[in-house]
Amino acid sequence: MVFYDPHITSQSQFLNREESNHAIKVLRLSAAHFIDITDGNGNLYKAQITTPNPKSCGIDVIGHTHYPKSNTHIHIAIAPTKNTDRMEWFVEKSVEIGIQEISFLKCFNSERKVIKKERFHKKAISAMKQSLNYHLPKINEMIGFNDLTMHAGAEQKFIAIVDFTNPKTLLEAASPDCSSYLVLIGPEGGFSEQEIQTAKNKNYIKVSLGPARLRTETAGLVACHLLNLT
Amino acid sequence: MVFYDPHITSQSQFLNREESNHAIKVLRLSAAHFIDITDGNGNLYKAQITTPNPKSCGIDVIGHTHYPKSNTHIHIAIAPTKNTDRMEWFVEKSVEIGIQEISFLKCFNSERKVIKKERFHKKAISAMKQSLNYHLPKINEMIGFNDLTMHAGAEQKFIAIVDFTNPKTLLEAASPDCSSYLVLIGPEGGFSEQEIQTAKNKNYIKVSLGPARLRTETAGLVACHLLNLT
Repeated sequence: MVFYDPHITSQSQFLNREESNHAIKVLRLSAAHFIDITDGNGNLYKAQITTPNPKSCGIDVIGHTHYPKSNTHIHIAIAPTKNTDRMEWFVEKSVEIGIQEISFLKCFNSERKVIKKERFHKKAISAMKQSLNYHLPKINEMIGFNDLTMHAGAEQKFIAIVDFTNPKTLLEAASPDCSSYLVLIGPEGGFSEQEIQTAKNKNYIKVSLGPARLRTETAGLVACHLLNLT
Repeated sequence: MVFYDPHITSQSQFLNREESNHAIKVLRLSAAHFIDITDGNGNLYKAQITTPNPKSCGIDVIGHTHYPKSNTHIHIAIAPTKNTDRMEWFVEKSVEIGIQEISFLKCFNSERKVIKKERFHKKAISAMKQSLNYHLPKINEMIGFNDLTMHAGAEQKFIAIVDFTNPKTLLEAASPDCSSYLVLIGPEGGFSEQEIQTAKNKNYIKVSLGPARLRTETAGLVACHLLNLT
């Protein structure tokens, strides 16, 4: 069982409130029990429970392992689907496969223009614990298409288009030498002509994700998996 | 809107009962309305409603397009997860990405030894309609590990193992010249030593699915996506 406390260090004497509750109230762990705690930044601490207080569990940190960051930074900016479950699973599955940053895009054809970032953050934490990777991706607030394309940087930037005449797939277009990638994934209705033009002006590369017609969340996951293969 | 009737032909005069109900009762379509109907075998028929009977909707087939089958046959045999939702999404997403056959494996470490095939079949139908591919994958009944490895055939057969010392990934091991692949995906507890040995005796190739630790359903989807890339 891995706990998550973003502020944990080797000097920590207490687990944060949420995980104290989880450890003591939910899991009923008692004094002397050993637990693993990650800060979501690649650090994993082994600790022993000293005081099983459900509001502030006393701990003794006895070991520390650092897991290095991935060499590549994969950032997917996706237009959230109407159905939040579908976005939650995108978050969960992309964290399992490997992702460093997620943004939610407000597009012209967006069906959902508001998100609860906290829910996605929680989903990411549980997927991180499950997949034992100890690096929590950055999850950003909802952002307008123009704002994102104006400000977001990456060595290679892509816009995924459903265009079966477009010969270049993301796998072909992604250069293995790059260390950071950004992919824009549109809503079910697709990007508007204006958005495609804006992206083009900002040097985004138009790519397809293969021959199949994919739902938004599947497209996001496929893009994430493809970039993990480069 | 696409309807599914496995028995439809150019001579059909009625839509099957389930879709008749869907068209007339749920969607409230009326006479003269045009609909698309697939048989899940690559055929798409354009038809016009003649008699809007919710039990047996009269139709006039006026057009027919055949979509050729994929050149490769991808068969994933997966140990179903305890949580059925996770398997349902594996079915949905693999149909979107492209799969021809799904089996459910009963393994030594299986958490679930019974499935409701009909639910997965329905999920596959709705994913097929959604992704406009018109080829419904074959979904098999639950089968024991030994039975499957004894009888299932494919040009290349793989067993996915979580083994970070195993240098061969599925992407490297899959030969682009093959026209049929079978991949075994184990339960959360992994395949037993005995199962791995059985697979080896039957010439299954041990492969990894990359560096990440994936849940069963994610492993199945990643394998399906990788084979679609070969």
